Amino acid sequence: MSGTPRLVEVRKNILKHNDELARALRERFAAAGVFVVSLVSSPGAGKTALLEKLLGLLAERHRVAALVGDLATENDAARLARSGAPVRQIVTGTVCHLDATMVDRALEGWDLAALDFLFVENVGNLVCPASYDLGENLRMVLLSTTEGEDKPLKYPTIFHTADVAVVTKIDLAEAVEFDRETARRNIGNLPVFEVSSKTGAGVAELVEFLRGAK
Amino acid sequence: MSGTPRLVEVRKNILKHNDELARALRERFAAAGVFVVSLVSSPGAGKTALLEKLLGLLAERHRVAALVGDLATENDAARLARSGAPVRQIVTGTVCHLDATMVDRALEGWDLAALDFLFVENVGNLVCPASYDLGENLRMVLLSTTEGEDKPLKYPTIFHTADVAVVTKIDLAEAVEFDRETARRNIGNLPVFEVSSKTGAGVAELVEFLRGAK
Repeated sequence: MSGTPRLVEVRKNILKHNDELARALRERFAAAGVFVVSLVSSPGAGKTALLEKLLGLLAERHRVAALVGDLATENDAARLARSGAPVRQIVTGTVCHLDATMVDRALEGWDLAALDFLFVENVGNLVCPASYDLGENLRMVLLSTTEGEDKPLKYPTIFHTADVAVVTKIDLAEAVEFDRETARRNIGNLPVFEVSSKTGAGVAELVEFLRGAK
Repeated sequence: MSGTPRLVEVRKNILKHNDELARALRERFAAAGVFVVSLVSSPGAGKTALLEKLLGLLAERHRVAALVGDLATENDAARLARSGAPVRQIVTGTVCHLDATMVDRALEGWDLAALDFLFVENVGNLVCPASYDLGENLRMVLLSTTEGEDKPLKYPTIFHTADVAVVTKIDLAEAVEFDRETARRNIGNLPVFEVSSKTGAGVAELVEFLRGAK
């Protein structure tokens, strides 16, 4: 992203096209009865670790699947596939976010009606993914305790466009002197869950929330 | 960043223009005798905390200053100004990286010849800053132990374009089961420093390296 007039104009057209495709995706998801949750965060905030937990817990009663985006490597898909859920990797190359076209392509051949929940893990980035609607029903932004409480102020758009915030690595909160109250104040008006994918703390509550949101 | 042909073409022109301006900046820096170090990392990897330490230690024998980039807030500049060094904030709005034009503008009125070291802290992002030369002499990429060892594989370009890697939050390495050997292998062929801005471990060695590099 850059601010020159020509690029702004080109980006506007791209975003418009993305919005149209995202709208079509959302209609397909609704028709198939699948609830789609996207995950956005900094690199290393724990999207994949949380997703491993969520897939495991939800799979007890629901049919779940995931798409995972990265610039390079298929490590995350391999990691998540251990859950037994269908998983596909989207490799973006140099592109710093997923877009609706990539999601659409990655879904090719999948029977969406056979799913209850579809998770879409975006590229680790607190800026670029903010502007790209993926047709998801719920956008989940993760903030790890190790990143500091100030990130919602420094990356406002991604938090403004999210529907729920998840504070991850809560088991490290004391070690890094994470101030929960300040974080909640900075996150603002979103439902907030505090979880540790390592200890499992808080994950069941998040699962309940997702079941209720569907 | 996106991959459509029109955007790729516009981006190519922008990058070409950026490269030209960066070259001019590099010549100005050389003529003034100032050594310029840029810092790139994920959000929350500890760029500002490390910079606080570096400014403090270097200021004992050198004239130092810093530019800090963020989408929003002037928090980092306020934090770094406590060191007594001249500091300016660059607020990028929605732009996910600094560019040479922003650096050029932020330097207006500064006497570069009065400086030995100038630090440029980029926006927290492991993708966008990779392509933008800022005229720096040395690009330092930070990887915090809490992010995991796999980040150099997932964000290869930013590590390939860096001159030195700094593993931060080394005091948390055991708590997060950070595997130092795997991280070094993934980082590849760069000088690697391990530091903790909290305990101060390793920072003196990094300062010595910077003095030697100048």
